[in-house]
Amino acid sequence: MELTYTFRDAALVALALTHRSAGKPNNERMEFLGDALLGAIVAEMLYETHPKATEGEMSRLRAQLVNGQALAVMARELELGERLKLGSGELKSGGFRRDSILADAFEALVAAVYLDGGFEACRDTVRGLFANRVAALPRSSKDAKTRLQEWLQAQGWPLPQYELVATEGEDHARIFDVNCVVTQPVSISAPGRGNSRRLAEQDAAEVVLSRLRVAQDGH
Amino acid sequence: MELTYTFRDAALVALALTHRSAGKPNNERMEFLGDALLGAIVAEMLYETHPKATEGEMSRLRAQLVNGQALAVMARELELGERLKLGSGELKSGGFRRDSILADAFEALVAAVYLDGGFEACRDTVRGLFANRVAALPRSSKDAKTRLQEWLQAQGWPLPQYELVATEGEDHARIFDVNCVVTQPVSISAPGRGNSRRLAEQDAAEVVLSRLRVAQDGH
Repeated sequence: MELTYTFRDAALVALALTHRSAGKPNNERMEFLGDALLGAIVAEMLYETHPKATEGEMSRLRAQLVNGQALAVMARELELGERLKLGSGELKSGGFRRDSILADAFEALVAAVYLDGGFEACRDTVRGLFANRVAALPRSSKDAKTRLQEWLQAQGWPLPQYELVATEGEDHARIFDVNCVVTQPVSISAPGRGNSRRLAEQDAAEVVLSRLRVAQDGH
Repeated sequence: MELTYTFRDAALVALALTHRSAGKPNNERMEFLGDALLGAIVAEMLYETHPKATEGEMSRLRAQLVNGQALAVMARELELGERLKLGSGELKSGGFRRDSILADAFEALVAAVYLDGGFEACRDTVRGLFANRVAALPRSSKDAKTRLQEWLQAQGWPLPQYELVATEGEDHARIFDVNCVVTQPVSISAPGRGNSRRLAEQDAAEVVLSRLRVAQDGH
């Protein structure tokens, strides 16, 4: 993998590859900007390639592509490790191989392209780097009810119950309200709504999934 | 406050203002994209206006500007509530006044500008909307040692200890390694490094602050 962008200002690249162990200035501030740009550009890619994915699905797919480990892999493909500027401590302890340091440099490099060449240049570069990875993502992920069922089964927990709470509207435009209820070992009840009972159940299952994930992250 | 942008495609605005309670299609997917764009554009504003802020400080400042409550305030200033399309249930229960629904619509509207007019249009719009708020931020926030001390005092906890661990390098380019140690009621020891002892201590205090925040968020 190669960076297709050619920098006008070489100092920006050097700064992007300077770890904080080497003193100040370093790439920490650029990393903040690059992380945000990466999030937006990959969000747009998924918005385009996955027109039927829900917000939750796109968010999960992005987390799959943009996380410390994945970015470290990309940094290695770009051979950023060899070009990092590290303090002598990090140098001795092999900091140029550390995932977190590599991922941060990758993010900072994205910011450097933006600062050097503007948004379109940055977008083109990021899209180029992520094109194959985005293309390799499953086109349509499993629906929320299936994912919830599989997740609960994996924990050895009982399956959820779906309850019809209410319907409203005329026959041709009826709206269904359901609850998805998990009772053991945690108690969760989440509402869902849709133009069919199935869509409402998918909607509720998605909410339960997100709550389960929040609960997990807390540990 | 007014949206300075004029849409070519009115359908995009309508979609941005359609809550999921009104059925599909709705603004959920656009909200995902808008949230990411907002994060990047505000990150850039802070990168410019706060050239001395650390990554952690910029991240905190952004969270102050871009959060559900703050975005709901901006949505009200733009009078988005009156223009929301809601399902009848949300309509009856006053969904057009709900912070989360308003904030989501605001984010979706940012995406709508992007999809309609491109990045520069979106950036100009967001910068216009946030200009006063960014200008009102404290120019230089308190340093990390001060913030850590104040935070610990607010909890009634003992003050941290800073220990010099090592120095390395020639006299003119010495690097200091310190530890910032908090022992009660939680035990945290975090490393810091810098070209002076003071900078190294600031660095370590910043790490302790971030760990304390992580610990708090876990509850």
